[in-house]
Amino acid sequence: MSTPFMFEKPVGMRDTLPSYYVKEEKVKRQMEEEIKTWGYLPIRTPTLEYYETVGTASAILEKQLFKLLDQDGNTLVLRPDMTAPIARVAASSLKDQVFPIRLFYHDSLFRAQEREGGRPAEFNQMGVELVGDGTTSADGEVIALMIAALEKSGLKDFKVAVGHIGYVNALLQDVLGSEERVQTLRRYLYEKNYVGFRQHVKSLPLSSIDKNRLLGLLELRGGIETLEKAAELVQTEEAKKSIQELKELEEILAGYGVTEYIKIDFNLVMHMSYYTGIVFEGYGNRLGFPLSSGGRYDELLAKFHRPAQATGFGIRLDLLIEALDTKEEVRQDTCILFSKERRGEAIQTAKALRKEGKRVVLQDLQGVENVDELSESFSDVRYFIGKNGQEG
Amino acid sequence: MSTPFMFEKPVGMRDTLPSYYVKEEKVKRQMEEEIKTWGYLPIRTPTLEYYETVGTASAILEKQLFKLLDQDGNTLVLRPDMTAPIARVAASSLKDQVFPIRLFYHDSLFRAQEREGGRPAEFNQMGVELVGDGTTSADGEVIALMIAALEKSGLKDFKVAVGHIGYVNALLQDVLGSEERVQTLRRYLYEKNYVGFRQHVKSLPLSSIDKNRLLGLLELRGGIETLEKAAELVQTEEAKKSIQELKELEEILAGYGVTEYIKIDFNLVMHMSYYTGIVFEGYGNRLGFPLSSGGRYDELLAKFHRPAQATGFGIRLDLLIEALDTKEEVRQDTCILFSKERRGEAIQTAKALRKEGKRVVLQDLQGVENVDELSESFSDVRYFIGKNGQEG
Repeated sequence: MSTPFMFEKPVGMRDTLPSYYVKEEKVKRQMEEEIKTWGYLPIRTPTLEYYETVGTASAILEKQLFKLLDQDGNTLVLRPDMTAPIARVAASSLKDQVFPIRLFYHDSLFRAQEREGGRPAEFNQMGVELVGDGTTSADGEVIALMIAALEKSGLKDFKVAVGHIGYVNALLQDVLGSEERVQTLRRYLYEKNYVGFRQHVKSLPLSSIDKNRLLGLLELRGGIETLEKAAELVQTEEAKKSIQELKELEEILAGYGVTEYIKIDFNLVMHMSYYTGIVFEGYGNRLGFPLSSGGRYDELLAKFHRPAQATGFGIRLDLLIEALDTKEEVRQDTCILFSKERRGEAIQTAKALRKEGKRVVLQDLQGVENVDELSESFSDVRYFIGKNGQEG
Repeated sequence: MSTPFMFEKPVGMRDTLPSYYVKEEKVKRQMEEEIKTWGYLPIRTPTLEYYETVGTASAILEKQLFKLLDQDGNTLVLRPDMTAPIARVAASSLKDQVFPIRLFYHDSLFRAQEREGGRPAEFNQMGVELVGDGTTSADGEVIALMIAALEKSGLKDFKVAVGHIGYVNALLQDVLGSEERVQTLRRYLYEKNYVGFRQHVKSLPLSSIDKNRLLGLLELRGGIETLEKAAELVQTEEAKKSIQELKELEEILAGYGVTEYIKIDFNLVMHMSYYTGIVFEGYGNRLGFPLSSGGRYDELLAKFHRPAQATGFGIRLDLLIEALDTKEEVRQDTCILFSKERRGEAIQTAKALRKEGKRVVLQDLQGVENVDELSESFSDVRYFIGKNGQEG
């Protein structure tokens, strides 16, 4: 019955052992409590969705989808993100609920991995979606809430980079004209390949003024003054509107008292087409990559026949815990070791201690492999052994 | 981009909307708190496992497994139960931890469903595994813990039926001799097809004494006196040992003060081969089917190369909530509606209320579709509208 690889797990799949679980649970609850006070309601969607619905609507690359076939030959995917499923719910089960709808979730997501990658193929994410609200107040709320949740998790010294897809599109469009050329440059930004961006710009048949405007985009990272520099590079209506939104956002975030966390980054292009407005990423100082991200996606809901503006964020629990690097020990209070003769007594003692909220392992001596080793993992070991023994 | 069936979910897949989620979360936490005080530690295993390892070792019928292929052509399954994965962990990641090991989990499990079934293909289960302890104290502990958890959930008037696979096997073996005949009768019990059992017994070429012994098995349901009746039907060593274990169990459960919940049921055969000793099922009085079950599985760990005796239980959250039938309303405290001019003030008010633990939706009036409908879902609506307005 047993096979040589009985211990193995599929590529990218991990066990969550108690010490990590306890750490994750604590962080999860702290953030959840905060999110609840902002009036967001919890939701869960199925692990499996149709590829044709949620799979194609999601922001996740095709090659990262976990696909399988059901009994009728339909292609299913393991939930690759929560935004598309929540859009489906907002447009179906919650179709009678008036907008705006505020929802939060905590669930595992799936990304197919190459054998060599070493990255998780399943990970926990917590996030919110604010559906049916196109105001900049909504953008500000989700960014402020993400910051509040990260603060509650205990994360120190993190930053949130904020950009605007509308501005990037406006600048590229204004200089390059054709959508095909825009796509090429946008891809370099998406891949954070700034060397490639520079080289490509230099190779384009453009005036040096236009080349400098494109290269100037790479400089648009920093404080609030970046907005003034951005306004100089392009003056189309879309660009002006984007900058105006970011100015209003800055004001809102000042109201929330969180501007210390914010930096402007106009190079933020987290997806080729999914996001439509203000986008953002959260970075822990100890990590070189974002642990949370979000933004405005005003076109997704229309795919589910309930057009609506929307924004939201997701926080990767695994990356957050890596950034926190806390030492959380799994502590066991008491172990009561008993022999059969005194089992009744031992049970009563355990009951009384548990009622006080203590964690008590009640253990029949006959079931113990190694008493010394077992005892070592408890701060308090009590013995109920032998017919007329005293509690030891 | 949109398809006609954008709202559809795969067969048996469900959305968990806020009102149900809140109910489930409450029940989950109440039971979890209890389980923690008994010294069980939390664990999570991956959603995907190899079919060859966990898939074949699990107690779930082959046809109920959700299978898929990975990129290398290996067959994967969506976690059909938690016992086999935890056995894998106990034998691998926790191999240096001394027995007994006490673990608990709360996770979704998967069972492939026919299109017409209407049953969930994904559901949440909470449970414990006590690995490496062969004592009857361990059997008693998990049954008492399951009862304590169900009590904490608020369930009233439930019963736990307790049986013993060893006794059933001993009786069938003693009367029938061949394992093939034993299998046939065991299958009737497994399917709870007692009419079929009777008919089959009558058709067997046995003495009327032996037929009556087999039919007598169907009568072995009731109070503690059932053990005496069981002892009369078969006197092999295995039968005596089983009855002795149940007598000891009764004594242990009396120690825990939970005998009122217990009834003896020697017809309990929850699987064709998986369980090896004391087995049990919990029934809510409002349901005709078990909402929790468990038992001793002393042969599973050997498949993972760390032979060990073990027992545990699982509680189906969906069935428990059905049995509870509580009305839990999702309550929203306060909605603050603001216009842009007074946004700063509105943010400060929301911050202050949230600090007190209140749930506050902060809403830009411009983002609202229908103010009246939105207001209706809050017990308290405050307005920060107009340049010089007063809080309304």
